[in-house]
Amino acid sequence: MARAVKWVYPFSEVEQAEALGGGSWESVRALLGGKGANLADMSRLGVPVPPGFIVTTEACNAFLAGDDEFPEQMWEQELEQIEAIEKVSGKKFGSPDNPLLVSCRSGSKFSMPGMMDTILNIGLNDEVAAGMVAEMGDSRFAYDLYRRLVQMFGSVVLGVPDEVFGAMILAHREAAGAQKDTDLSGDDWRILTEKFKGIVRSYTSGTEFPSDPYEQLKLATAAVFKSWNSNRAIDYRNAAGIPHDLGTAVTIQRMVFGNLGSDSGTGVAMSRNASTGAHELEGDFLLNAQGEDVVAGIRQTLPLTALQSEMPDIYDELVEIARKLETHYRNMQDMEFTIEHDKLWILQTRDGKRTAQAEVRIAADMAEEELITREEAVRRVQPEQLDFFFHPQLDPDAALAHKPVAKGLDVSPGAAMGMVAFDADTTQRWADEGKDVIMVRPETKPDDIHGLLAANGIVTARGGRTSHAAVVARQFGKPAVVGVEALGIDFDDRQMTIGSAVVREGDWISIDGSRGEIRLGKLPTVVPDLKNPYLLKILGWADEIRTLGVRANADSPQDAERAREYGAEGIGLCRTEHMFFEKNRLPIVQKMILAKYHSERNDAIDELLPLQRADFEGLFRAMAGYPVIIRLLDPPLHEFLPSHDELVQDLADLKMRLQHFNTMSEVDEALDQVRIKQDFLQRVKALREVNPMLGTRGVRLGILVPELTQMQVRAVFEAACACAKDGVDVHPEIMIPLTMHARELESQATLLRAEAVTVMAEQGVEVEYRFGTMIELPRAALTADEMAHCAEFFSFGTNDLTQTVFGISRDDAERGFLLHYVGNRIVPENPFHTLDAAGVGKLMEIAVTLGRQTRPDLEVGVCGEHGGDPKSIALCHALGLDYVSCSPFRVPIARLAAAHAALGPIGAEEENSRA
Amino acid sequence: MARAVKWVYPFSEVEQAEALGGGSWESVRALLGGKGANLADMSRLGVPVPPGFIVTTEACNAFLAGDDEFPEQMWEQELEQIEAIEKVSGKKFGSPDNPLLVSCRSGSKFSMPGMMDTILNIGLNDEVAAGMVAEMGDSRFAYDLYRRLVQMFGSVVLGVPDEVFGAMILAHREAAGAQKDTDLSGDDWRILTEKFKGIVRSYTSGTEFPSDPYEQLKLATAAVFKSWNSNRAIDYRNAAGIPHDLGTAVTIQRMVFGNLGSDSGTGVAMSRNASTGAHELEGDFLLNAQGEDVVAGIRQTLPLTALQSEMPDIYDELVEIARKLETHYRNMQDMEFTIEHDKLWILQTRDGKRTAQAEVRIAADMAEEELITREEAVRRVQPEQLDFFFHPQLDPDAALAHKPVAKGLDVSPGAAMGMVAFDADTTQRWADEGKDVIMVRPETKPDDIHGLLAANGIVTARGGRTSHAAVVARQFGKPAVVGVEALGIDFDDRQMTIGSAVVREGDWISIDGSRGEIRLGKLPTVVPDLKNPYLLKILGWADEIRTLGVRANADSPQDAERAREYGAEGIGLCRTEHMFFEKNRLPIVQKMILAKYHSERNDAIDELLPLQRADFEGLFRAMAGYPVIIRLLDPPLHEFLPSHDELVQDLADLKMRLQHFNTMSEVDEALDQVRIKQDFLQRVKALREVNPMLGTRGVRLGILVPELTQMQVRAVFEAACACAKDGVDVHPEIMIPLTMHARELESQATLLRAEAVTVMAEQGVEVEYRFGTMIELPRAALTADEMAHCAEFFSFGTNDLTQTVFGISRDDAERGFLLHYVGNRIVPENPFHTLDAAGVGKLMEIAVTLGRQTRPDLEVGVCGEHGGDPKSIALCHALGLDYVSCSPFRVPIARLAAAHAALGPIGAEEENSRA
Repeated sequence: MARAVKWVYPFSEVEQAEALGGGSWESVRALLGGKGANLADMSRLGVPVPPGFIVTTEACNAFLAGDDEFPEQMWEQELEQIEAIEKVSGKKFGSPDNPLLVSCRSGSKFSMPGMMDTILNIGLNDEVAAGMVAEMGDSRFAYDLYRRLVQMFGSVVLGVPDEVFGAMILAHREAAGAQKDTDLSGDDWRILTEKFKGIVRSYTSGTEFPSDPYEQLKLATAAVFKSWNSNRAIDYRNAAGIPHDLGTAVTIQRMVFGNLGSDSGTGVAMSRNASTGAHELEGDFLLNAQGEDVVAGIRQTLPLTALQSEMPDIYDELVEIARKLETHYRNMQDMEFTIEHDKLWILQTRDGKRTAQAEVRIAADMAEEELITREEAVRRVQPEQLDFFFHPQLDPDAALAHKPVAKGLDVSPGAAMGMVAFDADTTQRWADEGKDVIMVRPETKPDDIHGLLAANGIVTARGGRTSHAAVVARQFGKPAVVGVEALGIDFDDRQMTIGSAVVREGDWISIDGSRGEIRLGKLPTVVPDLKNPYLLKILGWADEIRTLGVRANADSPQDAERAREYGAEGIGLCRTEHMFFEKNRLPIVQKMILAKYHSERNDAIDELLPLQRADFEGLFRAMAGYPVIIRLLDPPLHEFLPSHDELVQDLADLKMRLQHFNTMSEVDEALDQVRIKQDFLQRVKALREVNPMLGTRGVRLGILVPELTQMQVRAVFEAACACAKDGVDVHPEIMIPLTMHARELESQATLLRAEAVTVMAEQGVEVEYRFGTMIELPRAALTADEMAHCAEFFSFGTNDLTQTVFGISRDDAERGFLLHYVGNRIVPENPFHTLDAAGVGKLMEIAVTLGRQTRPDLEVGVCGEHGGDPKSIALCHALGLDYVSCSPFRVPIARLAAAHAALGPIGAEEENSRA
Repeated sequence: MARAVKWVYPFSEVEQAEALGGGSWESVRALLGGKGANLADMSRLGVPVPPGFIVTTEACNAFLAGDDEFPEQMWEQELEQIEAIEKVSGKKFGSPDNPLLVSCRSGSKFSMPGMMDTILNIGLNDEVAAGMVAEMGDSRFAYDLYRRLVQMFGSVVLGVPDEVFGAMILAHREAAGAQKDTDLSGDDWRILTEKFKGIVRSYTSGTEFPSDPYEQLKLATAAVFKSWNSNRAIDYRNAAGIPHDLGTAVTIQRMVFGNLGSDSGTGVAMSRNASTGAHELEGDFLLNAQGEDVVAGIRQTLPLTALQSEMPDIYDELVEIARKLETHYRNMQDMEFTIEHDKLWILQTRDGKRTAQAEVRIAADMAEEELITREEAVRRVQPEQLDFFFHPQLDPDAALAHKPVAKGLDVSPGAAMGMVAFDADTTQRWADEGKDVIMVRPETKPDDIHGLLAANGIVTARGGRTSHAAVVARQFGKPAVVGVEALGIDFDDRQMTIGSAVVREGDWISIDGSRGEIRLGKLPTVVPDLKNPYLLKILGWADEIRTLGVRANADSPQDAERAREYGAEGIGLCRTEHMFFEKNRLPIVQKMILAKYHSERNDAIDELLPLQRADFEGLFRAMAGYPVIIRLLDPPLHEFLPSHDELVQDLADLKMRLQHFNTMSEVDEALDQVRIKQDFLQRVKALREVNPMLGTRGVRLGILVPELTQMQVRAVFEAACACAKDGVDVHPEIMIPLTMHARELESQATLLRAEAVTVMAEQGVEVEYRFGTMIELPRAALTADEMAHCAEFFSFGTNDLTQTVFGISRDDAERGFLLHYVGNRIVPENPFHTLDAAGVGKLMEIAVTLGRQTRPDLEVGVCGEHGGDPKSIALCHALGLDYVSCSPFRVPIARLAAAHAALGPIGAEEENSRA
């Protein structure tokens, strides 16, 4: 007899379902639901899964479309499969003697956790329960199962509020003087079962809990079908974008029990160590227990080694199953198992959660085991996970135990502990004394650089993701939390209020720069392994895959060495101004700025020459064989001077103090100070700009003060020639910042080439060099064809480009309206964090196209903050850039992200992964 | 006998030269030089030109290429033409009896003024001079000519320094006791002629001045040829970009003399009045005089009416010639003429220089006379010339007589005089008393608006072309000079130093906003005619030609009325914040900003509603039938508060004064003031931004304070509905400023459409409206396709777009590096003045293309400062924009510029204009 439609599939017939969908696992999941499909899949692999079958989603749709009537033949097919389970298990549905109990669960194509319904222990009634009691000699087990059935059936099928049953148990416990549910006896549960039936009756105006197991199954199946259209399920699908016409399947499966005596048990097993990634079975189990006992932590669980000694056969079987499942799903598995009377059953398997460290090791190992390809191994490790390997992390237990007192922006990852210091000098002094210090400032200025370098970590009240503190902290790998709104510093009393706490200078705090959190006290950290061999393996493979180069932003020889160690292939950005900020140089720079006469200014410039030359030499030697891009002075001059408001305050203070001096020499000294500060103030006022971001900086400075360009170029070439004479392979590249017009480049190129020729003639050695420009203003991008006539390379300054494309001042916006915008999804992401493809990306594309139109071999890179952001790196790859450049600490992340970008979106080969 | 080459063309054979070049006048000028070609051209028209001929540029090139030898047959052809002149003039070259004298002048294709050489009076020697003396009975005339010949020949042909001759005359005058050259007698000149010959001899080691006239002519011709390769000529051509292989032609022409008695004379005649454009012959002349006498102003010239009465036939002939030349050259002519013994000769004609007023009238008249087409008439008037009609101008003579004491930026045209006042209150008080006031400020703020409105003109020490003062001044047609570096105000002494002058408050100054000049004292002005019928004619024709719409930026009903009067077809930009700055409203706005509670803020917003509604009603009524684009609030809130530095100063002053009060009520009052200022200061500090230009303004405000958007939209629709009920045809369009992301628009559109529906339902009337956005950030332009889904129109805010595309803060740059850049041609033009086609223009093109891709009927305009700049208007036309919007005073200029843009580059029909 040919059946019209097959509504029901036993686990063993999964292949038929697969054939129906043309071999696509996707369609199997659509027809049988995710849960059912996976159980069937395991069953097919020969994994011992409790027998069962699935009523299809098509049956559900037919039911819902047909006035809540089962489609023809569906119920008959269900009955057939119940018989099949009876046959294979030797149990009988509805029989008091060795009864078969089944579960009835929903399962749709997409997981909708907690949204849909489950009914366990179907098949129990008064007779069956009594039979079980007789058979087991224990009434507690049977009546606990029975009352659960009535409770679940009542709430799922008949709509009785679940709380009512809970309240009844509580009342009964009180009456019985029982502390916990486990203190209740079999009799108590029997009485409660009867009371539950009463509840059902009264809440449904007389409907009886059905004692016929088949009636139970029929109603449960229909209830699961109907739950697809429950309000909460519809809301969830709307929110998650899941179509409403998929329907749910119903999985009906034999119940197995781990609490049937000392030959039974239950547990959870991972196919590899979830913390370290080591290839060993790991997990917890309990003898004579139910699954929920393991999870709830009521009893102390045992490690799987205990299982190995107690039930060595079962353990071996579990190891073999784990191997089988890993081979099939090509990933580490997290399995739930139950042992019922010495028989192992696997109830569920899924890809296991793991730490970053484990992720890396498992990916590397699996590739070595040829379970997955190297490409897959690389793809499995998320770039951001590598952060773990480069920064100490707050001990996870300590983090849980201590609530943060305040939050800010997570601008530089890692954990740091130290005593609070409120200024850079104190920070340095304490650090010199060997103390751990966290520097806490309203915001940082270049003046604070010695404190930043000496501190373990940095906290500021103001500033955004690209504020001075944030940029410098990332640069030097210092954990930092900035923009902490809830922070107020009282300099007079040397204390701060942070959230609700008051912290005195010298008190300990702990900061977590990966999460932007601040905690009181000194908390333990975990320091991961920098030379992790698995990591090195993954990064090596990533390097083979990626086509995008990775360079580092580095301003000092030490930075450059670290960058090489992390795999940087050159320096994409050396910010020469960072050399100017150093403590012994700042006074020279200030002298240059304050100079009244041309000659005085040039004297100061000359003093800077040997210092810059030495820096460049160090960079070239550290980066031998690789390109070093040196950007000429970029920031506006006033950044090298104290702030306006600070000077005004200082002067007021000085004048006040003048009244209290006793000796003439004290007065004279103070008057000198006044004169100096007044000079500063006058110059600061003259240099003051309404919008400094759009002001006199970058190449504009180079054009107004050509001597500065000349000095920097001379320093570069003197250093390069000295290295070349020593046989070092140098590749200097000079980069002009903030260009907006090709004529700026021409003007600077003329100056530069002349100086280069002069120096090389003086030194008697030829050095190959390149000349290029930042593309960080829209006009530079829009006229890239003109720019490329003069420039031999482009480097996108995506920070400034984002500022001008969006018309956003990063100094203001990240603590202002941009927060509101990101929070309210008016912009999808913070564009200073992830490159904006639609706007900034489009402009970059225009620049790349126009630039290469003029100069086909034009080298194009990125040196903004985005160079270390995986999503942005993917965009750079798509735009055909040659390299990204980021802070040394992010170089490994960029190498991995570049490999991901080269691999592209997940292809068909991985779609078949079923876990 | 067939001649190999024709080296020499008499004036009468110009057609042959033309035929040679395929009828192109261009090639005639190349062959005969500009001067020769024009003389020949006049001769062909039958204008009495002294007979002559031209040795071609080809002859010159052959000469220079052939070792300074005349090409074959050239000299013979020259001699033939001398004979022809002898024949037609009845004079004889080299004969003492009625001698023919000729001039020999260079003339190349392109004018090279002063660069090349001329020799007059060729044909004189001792015998000829003696013959002339005998004939005329006057030796002075003949020997003056003779010594000039020797002098010119000496310097041009033989290289004697010209100064030597001058020194000799001076020495002779001293010896003779003569004050001036004209005091010297015929004998003196005879003696000097001999002495000049001696100079020639001694400076050339014995070369004699050639007494043979043919030798004179031959050497003069060769000397003119050689002058093509003189150092100064080569330098000039290099500088002017003139090719070096063109060569010079030599024009040889009969000399005529106006100083041969009372039947002779000389003068200059314009075919129309150069000041007014009236169609009447106008000029100066002298009887019995040489051309240089008219120019030198030694004798008082006579008007041409005197010629009419003295020599009526000659006058009539001149009128007829003027008519003929105008018809030929299709332009007003400026002619030099000489009358020699009752015979009129025209020596030169060219297009006449004229005032703007004359330009307009002549163009209009000539089109009416059908001498030129209306298109040509429109094209002849330069848009900037119209400024003259809309602003009083400094009297030109007064401007010449008084040197400016300082210069600044010419930001708002016209002249203004007044007493200097140093603050807005004084300005207003004095103006109320009927005084003329020029307000002089370091810079202006919205607080100063009442002063700006009351003053005749504005001067500021700081600020650029788009500073507050500049924008407001242009808006209200007030002459203004801003960014006057040489200006320092001493508020304590109520005086200023300006350049080297000290001016006290109340002293008079005169400013010229068209040139950015400041003069001391009260100088006269010229007020032109606003309803000039010729202007109206030209503008009417321009309107027929142009395809680009012209709207006005107007913020008040008065502005709107003026804009209509000047021909605006709607309002392209109403800046609603200007309404907020008004004196009675600012306190309400400040209350809104300072509000501590939501309800308090909303109360203030509600107070603003009726005020805004009334403004909008006025606008709609004034612009009935035309679209009115209303931009929602744009500037950052802190612009409505006093400045930070000012508040700090005020507070310090107040606290100081607190010590000197006597009564408690005085103290209380002062303390109240302190509290108010402190509130202000606190808010100002909170709102302070590092880069306000890129800060919390525009739609960002609208999103943070939706109540503000709601109020403004309500005001617009209440006003529109009220007008509609009165039968006024209203077209409100609401525009969102500073958009960077399409979601901002969506968010505001939702708010706006809901409010619009509500108001219209309340009012019971439907009003059609449109919703659009400014495109003033690069990201908006780059994502214009997304923007156009929501926006029904775009308006480019080219000021801000230029700032962000270039990364230039206009507040800083126009007094900073941009000056250096423009001065050193690093940028070709100030991009805030003329739209940058390569960068900003390219971005606009992208936006237009993307926008119309989404919405083909998208209306696109410009409302930045550039909307009134002719070059920028041409770019807007080329980009396919629908309209430009500018300040009402520039509307006529924009109408004309738009017509010019539609006419495109000058076509072939006008290339034939030969003047």
